[in-house]
Amino acid sequence: MTEPAATSSAIEPAVEAYLAANREQRVERLLDLVRIPSVSALPEHAGDMRAAADWIAADLRRIGADEVEVVETELHPIVTGRIHRTPGAPTVLVYCHYDVQPVDPVELWETAPFDPFVRDGRIVGRGASDDKGQLVMHLAAVEAILAVRGQLPVNLTFLFEGEEEFGSESLERWIPGARDRLAADVALISDTGFFEGNIPAITVGLRGIMYAQIDVVGPPVDLHSGGYGGVVENPANALAGIITALKGPDGRVRIPGFYDDVVALTEPEREAIAALPFDADRLRDEIGVPALVGETGYTVLERKGARPTLDVNGIWGGFQGEGAKTIIPAHAHAKVSCRLVARQRPERIFELLRDQVARIAPPGVTATVRYIHGGLPSLTPIDHPATRAAARALAATFGREPVFIREGGSIPVTSQFDSVLGLPVVLLGF
Amino acid sequence: MTEPAATSSAIEPAVEAYLAANREQRVERLLDLVRIPSVSALPEHAGDMRAAADWIAADLRRIGADEVEVVETELHPIVTGRIHRTPGAPTVLVYCHYDVQPVDPVELWETAPFDPFVRDGRIVGRGASDDKGQLVMHLAAVEAILAVRGQLPVNLTFLFEGEEEFGSESLERWIPGARDRLAADVALISDTGFFEGNIPAITVGLRGIMYAQIDVVGPPVDLHSGGYGGVVENPANALAGIITALKGPDGRVRIPGFYDDVVALTEPEREAIAALPFDADRLRDEIGVPALVGETGYTVLERKGARPTLDVNGIWGGFQGEGAKTIIPAHAHAKVSCRLVARQRPERIFELLRDQVARIAPPGVTATVRYIHGGLPSLTPIDHPATRAAARALAATFGREPVFIREGGSIPVTSQFDSVLGLPVVLLGF
Repeated sequence: MTEPAATSSAIEPAVEAYLAANREQRVERLLDLVRIPSVSALPEHAGDMRAAADWIAADLRRIGADEVEVVETELHPIVTGRIHRTPGAPTVLVYCHYDVQPVDPVELWETAPFDPFVRDGRIVGRGASDDKGQLVMHLAAVEAILAVRGQLPVNLTFLFEGEEEFGSESLERWIPGARDRLAADVALISDTGFFEGNIPAITVGLRGIMYAQIDVVGPPVDLHSGGYGGVVENPANALAGIITALKGPDGRVRIPGFYDDVVALTEPEREAIAALPFDADRLRDEIGVPALVGETGYTVLERKGARPTLDVNGIWGGFQGEGAKTIIPAHAHAKVSCRLVARQRPERIFELLRDQVARIAPPGVTATVRYIHGGLPSLTPIDHPATRAAARALAATFGREPVFIREGGSIPVTSQFDSVLGLPVVLLGF
Repeated sequence: MTEPAATSSAIEPAVEAYLAANREQRVERLLDLVRIPSVSALPEHAGDMRAAADWIAADLRRIGADEVEVVETELHPIVTGRIHRTPGAPTVLVYCHYDVQPVDPVELWETAPFDPFVRDGRIVGRGASDDKGQLVMHLAAVEAILAVRGQLPVNLTFLFEGEEEFGSESLERWIPGARDRLAADVALISDTGFFEGNIPAITVGLRGIMYAQIDVVGPPVDLHSGGYGGVVENPANALAGIITALKGPDGRVRIPGFYDDVVALTEPEREAIAALPFDADRLRDEIGVPALVGETGYTVLERKGARPTLDVNGIWGGFQGEGAKTIIPAHAHAKVSCRLVARQRPERIFELLRDQVARIAPPGVTATVRYIHGGLPSLTPIDHPATRAAARALAATFGREPVFIREGGSIPVTSQFDSVLGLPVVLLGF
């Protein structure tokens, strides 16, 4: 992440001075945390996960937080703490995560991912922005305000988890039993980013997901393609046909009812998206593909944030080795997922997919679909008081109005904050 | 294989008596050979391959063959020998193979595959009919005729290989340099079967093959499906679309020019095929699929032997593990092969496939096709003198005229006997 220039006139001068004076220590703390290889998906990093959680708990105590706790879970710890010293003020639940994604393929890194350094004012290292930088930023801001004013304008509850890159399962299991501890007026999730990396942004939409597996089964054993080719349906060909039928060449998902619950983009929303500074050719070159493609009639940004999709995440069946094996595979499989937008529901989309596969599967094979997991999409009203407060804070700090964007990915816990804790969610990322 | 009842009046009584008197030893010899687990595809059976070759060489010497040799190759030995003692008579090149397929999944065997036994006059064990039984049959017949008459009516050259189930590569490399040694008037390949297991048959058609791999490449690395779903083409979806476009729901291959060189079935041929006793429902139940499917307008037997196909032999790309990984795979792949019929040529079919894939690949990915291997189809004239002689022999032995059939698979060496050695080929299997 980039350390924001602490020069805006909107920041109280004394706080600004404190931040400037402590800049070096603050950067060192972030470098410290980035150096811990807290890869949640790899069992060999369990000790590093624990070390990162302990590091955060210690820093919470350092800035004066109360009731700091490293909560044990079935997998990686949750870290909580609170500063509730402003009676009558609203309570904000601040969420970040301390885990990072695996670094494979490591050869694409210019440097060792867990040996971070500062270049041109930017910290380079795994997790420096996603999400350790944002976590350290919150702690540093609280530290500075407390040091200067002795009190915060709001009450804060901190909730830092270690499985965001891995599905947030432990946190999801824990939240329902922790309603009292997490009671608040609004949730602030800091795990998104500025638009195009440099324009202050509030994310108002996140896509959800429905993840399933399609299994196509033909003969009980692989058959010799000489003796049976042209006589039996080939499960791999059949699977290819099913996948192809699920999405048209126009990029539209061909599952009856799929779009029924989609909240259509309004004209003002489309105009706002179109007004964002965005260079599709540059994105294409950055990704390294010959062309960007997707649903006809929508722009790249609309497709990424506001339109649902269907993608094969994996496919396999039959012979995958070097050379040749002349078989008709007994079965073939695909992982297929749909990114969803408000108000699509994963369970409903699964049922529609399952029913459509049953309708289109060719004779001679058996095709089944099973649900693997799902997550609700989210869409926050732009005019919610909490969204407006976040927008004012960004405008005051960075000297320009933030843009409101929709992101294509998911933050698993978002919908739970809404549905279980009843909290409005503001996605404020840096 | 079933030991043919040696009661036909067409067999010379003295030969018949010899065969009857030696039945037990003959069965024991076949059991001996079946007990050697000569699995050509598995390196750990290299010693067994050598043992099987040595066993055959010893048996050739036992029956009095000359110039018996176990020929070293890069992989498994070839065994040759000859009995050229009838000046002026035609020379027949007799081909069989002594290797067998791997026995996985071994749990589907009622008994240990290499522990053969006799039940209801049938020998049960891996390779008992394909092809060790036919090999031992030839040696036993020669032994009996030589014992009774002292001379054979023809000159024989034996050619037994150990890689038929593995592509016959060593034999194919060896044949061009062995033209003199293999000079003959006709090749007799005994590696097919009776029709439906009990009707004497001469196979007049074998399908060829064109085996290729399709590689679809998108982004340089796997992408997160949240951030990029709906923005980039998914190589696995694209591969499914390409495969689907290559064959219609009517079972016809949709590659321009694909059928150009196919020798159409004549009405008499179709009538002959229709007259064969064949129960499609029984075949469906034996295979264990809900329905037999294939090219519209052709019967099961026509599709199996006389019509070309396109099948996926394997497919893979992206995430194949348990659970979920939300990626757009960087690439996806499929092994695709076409069974060919006379006079399709594998190189030409490959070019047509390659060009069609280039035409239909969607924007946003790169699709390439590479040739893995090919084999020519074969179609022997029913009225060739060698075919007629084989038919007379079958009729005399089994008391009924043989049927002429086309088989769906390939015997790799067939087309080489034709193209390299210039021999007409009679496919006479038991």
